[in-house]
Amino acid sequence: MDEIMLRAASATAELTRSSAHQRAGWLRAVADTLDAITTQLVDAVDEETHLGRSRLTGEVARTTGQLRLFADVIIEGSYLEAIVDHADPHAQPPRPDLRRVLRPIGPVAVYTASNFPFAFSVAGGDTASALAVGCPVVVKAHPGHPKTSALTASAVADALAAAGAPDGTFALVDGYQAGVDLVQHPVIAAAAFTGSATGGRALHDLAAARPAPIPFYGELGSINPVIVTEAADAARGEELADGLAGSFTLGTGQFCTKPGVVFVPEGSQLLRRLADRELPAERAMLTDSIGDGFARGLDRLLGIPGLDIVAGSPAGALAVTLSVEHFAEHRERVLTEVFGPVTVLVRYAGREQLRDALDQLDGSLTATLHAEADEDIEEVTAALERIAGRVLFSGWPTGVAVTWAQHHGGPWPATTSQFTSVGATAVRRFLRPIAYQDAPQAVLPAALREENPLGIPRRVDGVLVLP
Amino acid sequence: MDEIMLRAASATAELTRSSAHQRAGWLRAVADTLDAITTQLVDAVDEETHLGRSRLTGEVARTTGQLRLFADVIIEGSYLEAIVDHADPHAQPPRPDLRRVLRPIGPVAVYTASNFPFAFSVAGGDTASALAVGCPVVVKAHPGHPKTSALTASAVADALAAAGAPDGTFALVDGYQAGVDLVQHPVIAAAAFTGSATGGRALHDLAAARPAPIPFYGELGSINPVIVTEAADAARGEELADGLAGSFTLGTGQFCTKPGVVFVPEGSQLLRRLADRELPAERAMLTDSIGDGFARGLDRLLGIPGLDIVAGSPAGALAVTLSVEHFAEHRERVLTEVFGPVTVLVRYAGREQLRDALDQLDGSLTATLHAEADEDIEEVTAALERIAGRVLFSGWPTGVAVTWAQHHGGPWPATTSQFTSVGATAVRRFLRPIAYQDAPQAVLPAALREENPLGIPRRVDGVLVLP
Repeated sequence: MDEIMLRAASATAELTRSSAHQRAGWLRAVADTLDAITTQLVDAVDEETHLGRSRLTGEVARTTGQLRLFADVIIEGSYLEAIVDHADPHAQPPRPDLRRVLRPIGPVAVYTASNFPFAFSVAGGDTASALAVGCPVVVKAHPGHPKTSALTASAVADALAAAGAPDGTFALVDGYQAGVDLVQHPVIAAAAFTGSATGGRALHDLAAARPAPIPFYGELGSINPVIVTEAADAARGEELADGLAGSFTLGTGQFCTKPGVVFVPEGSQLLRRLADRELPAERAMLTDSIGDGFARGLDRLLGIPGLDIVAGSPAGALAVTLSVEHFAEHRERVLTEVFGPVTVLVRYAGREQLRDALDQLDGSLTATLHAEADEDIEEVTAALERIAGRVLFSGWPTGVAVTWAQHHGGPWPATTSQFTSVGATAVRRFLRPIAYQDAPQAVLPAALREENPLGIPRRVDGVLVLP
Repeated sequence: MDEIMLRAASATAELTRSSAHQRAGWLRAVADTLDAITTQLVDAVDEETHLGRSRLTGEVARTTGQLRLFADVIIEGSYLEAIVDHADPHAQPPRPDLRRVLRPIGPVAVYTASNFPFAFSVAGGDTASALAVGCPVVVKAHPGHPKTSALTASAVADALAAAGAPDGTFALVDGYQAGVDLVQHPVIAAAAFTGSATGGRALHDLAAARPAPIPFYGELGSINPVIVTEAADAARGEELADGLAGSFTLGTGQFCTKPGVVFVPEGSQLLRRLADRELPAERAMLTDSIGDGFARGLDRLLGIPGLDIVAGSPAGALAVTLSVEHFAEHRERVLTEVFGPVTVLVRYAGREQLRDALDQLDGSLTATLHAEADEDIEEVTAALERIAGRVLFSGWPTGVAVTWAQHHGGPWPATTSQFTSVGATAVRRFLRPIAYQDAPQAVLPAALREENPLGIPRRVDGVLVLP
């Protein structure tokens, strides 16, 4: 561990000096390499998980697309938030020349997830966004797919080396203790985590308790509420039943954006139609321990008074229902994320009951509203904005597009709420500002030199200027 | 306390809906009110501190200028980081319409500082930046200037009410226990603090230990190293001695950017010239407890073996010196901030000794280099970038201009390193993103509507577009 950290620390200076074009080249080299060995990668994961080859092949493409998006983001250059304020000797008091830019924060620890063995793992979004901005990365491998992690890591390391990235830019560590040590190591300047609320909270607390605390970007757990209005239920009950069944069983329910609680009107068509659906009668979870966790979560849920099964079986996927009164009484149990193929339909009678129920929700990655076009949805939208990082209209939350505008984050316990782990703005987590006062042009970072040699958007004397 | 929190919570929804033009109006109303009562304010602080009327009058102007800058920042609109990604049905998989904007995080707790009774106090930068983006503010008054705090708070509250801000937008609390309760209150969504390392660490730990942790933006302590090269010392020793004497005694040394350690070459002209200076023979600190703390810090410093007095006296202001070897031996004691008029000149012999010494510095708000124009300063600049949030060339760190590019922050223990408490970008601390997926135009925030009704800069389909 100490040797890996020493190498990461020694790579920091060279990475800080590297240009966006260099780093974009490294990211694209990694993407090309992973694309080239897609079959090998899918073979490896297929042995270690039950996610299925077609989904896994798509996930490799998503992962390499993500690496290429971050290459575009750093070339474009807005992410540097470059600001130039020229000196103003006539101001009272006189103002110096001040120039601000974002710089890499330093070595980043990445804790990988079980459920996306590519997109949220060794070469996933956290790694890609940290490398993109010039931070060395030390990845903690997930025990759910060790061979895939090793194979990916070796491909990443080789591609980086061949593309000219400095020694120490990337490393993989393994095992529980390594994970605990990593977040506490003095060389680590920030940590990113996707996983359980328990694990995330423990690492968050270690990061905060360090002699020098570091930012901890955790994605911990999310219930992803869905609201179906009476009108939408009446108009599209069948279609919504199909959509919900598809969304909560996707990837055997092992998505952080799985809809865990669905608010439907009493006498719901959606509920009635869902009862007619055949849900998967068996399930193969990612790991035995995830399977055990799901079984325990299911037991806890099924013990709630007034809860009925709508469709499926405890051996496979399961949709259950209870009244909004029972929900309010057993709020905490209903709102504890159960990672796997189960969803809870909460029946409400009228807008007031729905409003009261929404007030009781915790932070979530997503919140979804199904309403009809002519309905007044202002109030319910405001309620969803309060709790979620992404608010969806007439869709399902399980797809997370990797784009400039994506936000994958939300108020605690979903995440620490101010940053995303998916999409272009994920890079901001691994940057810190430096302002230069009256600096000679020669020592300024290129982004701040007078002639704007990088050709990036900058704010100059208060005005945003395009290149 | 609970009633204040209830009112802050109930103001949140209306503040979230408020427009930038409304909030800019509130900020300008507060600024106009404070300007109008400058004499009263200065009278009040003059009774409670020993900062002097001229400095205090200037500080009121700085504070109201700051409120007006934030009004400009929110009208300009870039702070919203608005991003629009139109749907792409041909993508694989098809992409939804996604639009992202920053929204207020919720009620903010502001812990005020002793040393700037206006600019870092009740109506200071933290309050201004939180109000600017639509967050209710609850200020914890500093015990060093209670009457000024009450007077300012009542002026702020009246101005806000008259300008139409909702009830609960702003409140003042008082006392040690109120401060402890505030950061732990479930209604509070973020906290900002300027003060001692001990107090800041305690509040940081409380914020992190909450059932739902919140971001804690603390500015805790800073040694603000200054490096003088041999050439600069030889060329400008006298001028540098003047500058240093002025900077470390400014405000009786009670600036968070006071130069606490100055690296000078052996045989330094600066040091010799400083020895000829008369430094203030007496001092009146902000409060008795700050005076006691300074006396204790001075005792600790003066006990370091090999340390000599250069100028001044323990009763007033004091410049002391020691060799770089003694510095290395007693690093921790030399680098512990002593809040008051003292500075330590560390004598180095040659670049290598200087380099080793710089490697031992902790995070700082500022780092300053005095070099001659023809010197190669790349390596020393890189060393200063590693530890500081603002790097100055040929100046003194004690002035902090309030501009777009300013960064007042730095690696721990200076701050939590990724955000500033001074300058336009301070607002980012109190914002969180929300993405809207396939939202009807009517429920979108104005910043994200197709026709760009606010006329703000936005990123549309990956391209930054000016209004």
